[in-house]
Amino acid sequence: MEYIARVEVSLKPGHSDPEGETTKNSLKELNYPVREVRVSKVYRIILEASSAEEAEALVEEMCQRLLANPVKDDYTFKVEEKI
Amino acid sequence: MEYIARVEVSLKPGHSDPEGETTKNSLKELNYPVREVRVSKVYRIILEASSAEEAEALVEEMCQRLLANPVKDDYTFKVEEKI
Repeated sequence: MEYIARVEVSLKPGHSDPEGETTKNSLKELNYPVREVRVSKVYRIILEASSAEEAEALVEEMCQRLLANPVKDDYTFKVEEKI
Repeated sequence: MEYIARVEVSLKPGHSDPEGETTKNSLKELNYPVREVRVSKVYRIILEASSAEEAEALVEEMCQRLLANPVKDDYTFKVEEKI
């Protein structure tokens, strides 16, 4: 069966976010009253697995091995069956 | 008052996603059974506004002027008051 995983990878609190900083500065130059911008990334992954549990275990592994950097990133994900 | 906006910017369907493609290939090299990966970006923005309606109008403008490219990106956002 096919499953869709939605993985969000964001910087841990306290880690500097240069892209967010740049975006904030650009928005301020355009006169928007912004105080903070943080950027995170969402991976939408279609994968094959025999059950939702297997799909979740695979996605957990992908996060740890490739998608997130354990030193500086937090991640959350959800998996659902692809209709 | 301060508001938090969560803006998600993703490529329109049909637009190629080189970062998603690269991520898919890396996951396949690690033997994960993935068929597709698409990457999108989430901006978490803290901004000042006098009402939720004003905050939403500002974020809509930020999307159109800076955060999203109207040719290739779709965007969605939600705004809530910062507690």
